Amino acid sequence: MFDYRPITFVIGILLSILAAAMILPALVDIAYGHADWAVFLASSAVTLFFGLILILGSRSSGFTLKLRQAFILTTAAWVILPAFGALPFVFSELRLSYTDAFFEAMSGITTTGSTVITGLDSAPPGILLWRALLQWLGGIGIIVMALSVLPLMRVGGMQLFRMESSDTSEKVLPRAAQIASSIGFIYVAMTLICAGFYALSGMPLFDSVAHAMTTIATGGFSTSDLSIGGFASAGTDYVATVFMILGGLPFVLYLRAVRGDIMPLLRDSQVQWFLSILAGFIVMLTIYLWASENQLGLLLAFRLAAFNTVSVMTGTGYATSDYWLWGTFPAACLFFLMFFGGCAGSTTCGVKIFRIQVLYATMRSQMRKLNHPNGVFLIYYNKKPVSESVSSSVMAFFFLYVICFAALAVGLALLGLDFVTAVSAAATSISNVGPGLGPIIGPAGNFMPLPDAALWLMSFGMLLGRLELFTVLILFAPSFWRG
Amino acid sequence: MFDYRPITFVIGILLSILAAAMILPALVDIAYGHADWAVFLASSAVTLFFGLILILGSRSSGFTLKLRQAFILTTAAWVILPAFGALPFVFSELRLSYTDAFFEAMSGITTTGSTVITGLDSAPPGILLWRALLQWLGGIGIIVMALSVLPLMRVGGMQLFRMESSDTSEKVLPRAAQIASSIGFIYVAMTLICAGFYALSGMPLFDSVAHAMTTIATGGFSTSDLSIGGFASAGTDYVATVFMILGGLPFVLYLRAVRGDIMPLLRDSQVQWFLSILAGFIVMLTIYLWASENQLGLLLAFRLAAFNTVSVMTGTGYATSDYWLWGTFPAACLFFLMFFGGCAGSTTCGVKIFRIQVLYATMRSQMRKLNHPNGVFLIYYNKKPVSESVSSSVMAFFFLYVICFAALAVGLALLGLDFVTAVSAAATSISNVGPGLGPIIGPAGNFMPLPDAALWLMSFGMLLGRLELFTVLILFAPSFWRG
Repeated sequence: MFDYRPITFVIGILLSILAAAMILPALVDIAYGHADWAVFLASSAVTLFFGLILILGSRSSGFTLKLRQAFILTTAAWVILPAFGALPFVFSELRLSYTDAFFEAMSGITTTGSTVITGLDSAPPGILLWRALLQWLGGIGIIVMALSVLPLMRVGGMQLFRMESSDTSEKVLPRAAQIASSIGFIYVAMTLICAGFYALSGMPLFDSVAHAMTTIATGGFSTSDLSIGGFASAGTDYVATVFMILGGLPFVLYLRAVRGDIMPLLRDSQVQWFLSILAGFIVMLTIYLWASENQLGLLLAFRLAAFNTVSVMTGTGYATSDYWLWGTFPAACLFFLMFFGGCAGSTTCGVKIFRIQVLYATMRSQMRKLNHPNGVFLIYYNKKPVSESVSSSVMAFFFLYVICFAALAVGLALLGLDFVTAVSAAATSISNVGPGLGPIIGPAGNFMPLPDAALWLMSFGMLLGRLELFTVLILFAPSFWRG
Repeated sequence: MFDYRPITFVIGILLSILAAAMILPALVDIAYGHADWAVFLASSAVTLFFGLILILGSRSSGFTLKLRQAFILTTAAWVILPAFGALPFVFSELRLSYTDAFFEAMSGITTTGSTVITGLDSAPPGILLWRALLQWLGGIGIIVMALSVLPLMRVGGMQLFRMESSDTSEKVLPRAAQIASSIGFIYVAMTLICAGFYALSGMPLFDSVAHAMTTIATGGFSTSDLSIGGFASAGTDYVATVFMILGGLPFVLYLRAVRGDIMPLLRDSQVQWFLSILAGFIVMLTIYLWASENQLGLLLAFRLAAFNTVSVMTGTGYATSDYWLWGTFPAACLFFLMFFGGCAGSTTCGVKIFRIQVLYATMRSQMRKLNHPNGVFLIYYNKKPVSESVSSSVMAFFFLYVICFAALAVGLALLGLDFVTAVSAAATSISNVGPGLGPIIGPAGNFMPLPDAALWLMSFGMLLGRLELFTVLILFAPSFWRG
C-alpha cells in the first residue's frame, strides 16, 4: 500500500504557510483602506482549512520521504499551491476568471512573470503585494528544492550538487527544513538590501519592497504596466540589473560567503561562465544598439543592453524598453538567451549554466576523440571529473527540453497563436522568463489576449520548466505507478 | 611533413568527374539550339584543367588515406566542387553574381534546393539540367561518404554504421570506389524508374528526368518557379511523394534487397521510425487541413499534407502549395520537421532518424533510472546495445546542431533578416531542406532578396549540415593542425 501521508502532510504545511502569507496583503489593503482585505482573509481561511485537513489527516510517527513520494510531492505542491494562490485574483476587484487567476498564480510561484493583468499602476496594493509574495515564496521554494530534493532525484545531472550529507532519501525533509532556514536568512537579507537600494534610487517604498521580492526571485512581476521602465530611472535600472544577477547565482555559495569563505563563490566555474556569457551578450548588444540607434549614447545603450540581457537570461522578465522593436538581431539573441538561465541552486530556470558547461565539455571531448579515436578525454565540471552517467543525464535533459519546447510551440500554434507568438510563448513558459516576442506577448505586451487553452498549456509549460521536466513527466510513465 | 597528395589527388578526380558532367548540359543546349552550350564547354575545360593539374601534381605510389587527411578531404571537396560548379551560372545568360552562383551550386551539391533563380520555366535547358545534375551528384556523393568515410570518422554516432570490413582508414579509398559503383547502379536505376513514373503522370520528358534526379537526391531543385505545383497533377504529386520517401531510406539496404534479402530493409528500426513519424505528421496535417479549409476534400487534404510533410522532412524542399498560408499549426509542425531528416546512408540531411532514436532511448533510460537509481538500463538501436561512447557522440552532435542553428539564426538576424526569415533560413540551410518560412523565403518565395553576406552564411550552414557539423568544425580546432 503506497503511503501518501508524508505527501499530504508536507502539502498541508505548505498550504498553511501560503494561508499565513495571505494575511500580509490583507494587512496592506487595510492600511491603504482598500476593501479587498476581506478577499485575502477569506482566501486565507479557505487555504488554511484545507491545509489543516491535510495535516491532521496525515499524522504519522516519522517524516521519511521515499524517492517516489518525493516525485509526487514536488509536482503536487507546485500544482496545488497556485490552485489556492489563485483565489485572491478571482475574488478581488480584478475579478479574473479562474483560468486567468491560475495562470497568474502559476506564473508567480514558478517565478515566470508572465501576466494577464493590465492596469497594474492602479491595481489594489494587496493584489500587487500578493503577486510579489507568490514569486518570492516560489523563489525560496525552488532553491530549497534544488538543494534538498532534486540532487537526490538525480534529475538532469542535478546529482552533481549532492552534498555528502544528502545520501539517503529518508533524511530529505529535515534537511529541507534546515536548508530553508539557513538560506532563508540570506534570502530575506538580500531582499531587504535590494529594497533599500530601490528606495534609494527613487522608487516609492511599497514598489521597492514588491520589486525587491520579484528581483531576488528572478520573477519579474512589477507594480507597473510598464514594468521597471515605468520608473524611468537609471539608478533603478542598475539596481535591478545587479540584483537580478545576484538572484541568478547559487545561493548555497552565499551561505559559505556569509560564513567567511567567499572564494567558492568567486571561483565557482558556473558563476564564471554565467557572468562571462552575460558579459559577452551585453557587449554585443551594447555595440549593436549604439551603432544602430543614433540618438542613444554609449551609456544609455549599455544600460538598456545590460538590463534587458540580464532580465531575459535570468528569466526575470522585467522590461525597460520594447526590445522587439530594436530589430531582429537583439530579438534573436534574447530569444536564444531565454533558454540559458542562471546557476543551479538559484531562483532562475532554463537549461542552466552547469548543463551548458557539461554539454560543451562533452562536445569538446567528442571533437578531440574524432582526431584521436583511441584517446580518453574526461569531462570536467568545476575541476572535478564528471561521470558518464551525469553527462548522459544532462544530455537527455537537453534533448527533452528541446522536445518539450517544440511540443509546446506546436500546441500553442494549434490554438491559433501566430508563429512568433507561439514559439516565443513556448520558450518563455518552459524557461520561466515572462515576456515573449512580438506585438502581443512581447515586453510591451500582455498574455490576456491569448485563448484560455493557451494559458493552461503555458501553465503546464511553466510547471515543466520549473520542476526540471523529468520530475513532472515521470508521473506520466505507467511504470512509475506500477513501481 | 603532412601529405596532401591523397587529398589533392581525390579532389582532382572529383573535379574531372564534374567537368565530365558539364558535357551533358552542353549537349542538351546544343540539342535545343541554345547558345549556352559554349558556357558549359568552357566551364568544363576550366574545371578539367584544374582537376588534371591536381591529379598530375599528386601522383603517388599508393592511395592510402589517414584520418586527418579524410577530414580535410571531405570538407575541401564539398567547398571546391561548388566553387567550380558555380561557373556555368556565372557565364550563362542568367549572369548570376559569383555569390549567387556559389549559393546555387552549394545548394545543389548539398541537396538543399534553396534557389536564387527566378524565371525557371523559361530558363535555358542546360542550366536546368545542370542544377539537377549538381543535386544528383551531391546525393550519390553523400551516400558514398556516409558509407565509407563518416563511420570511420565516428562523426556524431555514425560509427553505428561501420561494416566489419571498414576497420582501417587505409582502405577507405578503394572501399569508397567499390561502394560508389554498387550503390551507383541502384541510384541510376531508381532515377530512371522515377523519371518513368513522372513521365507517365504527364510530366514532359525533360522535366521528368530533371525532377527524377532531384527527387532521388532529396534535393528539391525544380524546372518551374512553382516547383512540382507547376505541373498541377495528382499523379505527379504522388510519384514525387513516394520517391522522396525512397530517397530518405538507407541505400545500403536497397543493395541487400536487390541481392534478394529484402527483410533488412523492412525490419530496420530506422526505416520503421522514419515511416511512423512521417505517417503521424501526415495524419495530423490531413485532419487539420480537412477541418480548417472547407473547400478541400479529404483526398486533396491528404495529398497536400503527404506531399509537403514528406518534402520538408526528407529535406527535399519541393512545394505544391504555400503552406505558410495554411496557418500557424502546419507552419510550426513543418518548421520542427525540418530538423528530423531521414535515415543515415540516404540522401537526406538533418539530425537524422537514428540519432533521434538514440536520443529517445537515452532519455527513456534516464527516466527509468530516476525511479530505480541503482538499475542499469541499456540503450538499444536496431536490437543491438548502444555503447555509452556512441550515445555521447550522438548527444554531443545534437547539442552542436542546436548551437549551430542558433548561431546561424543570430548571424542572419544581424544581417537584417526579419525574425521568421532568419530563424527558418538557419533551419533550412543547416538541415539542407530548401525553402524556409514566411513571405520572402517560404515555399512560394526565393532567396534572391537576401543580402550577399546572408547567402554566404547560408552556404556555410549548408556545408556544416551536409557534412555532419563535426567534419567541418574540427578544421577550426588549432589542435587538429598541431596533430
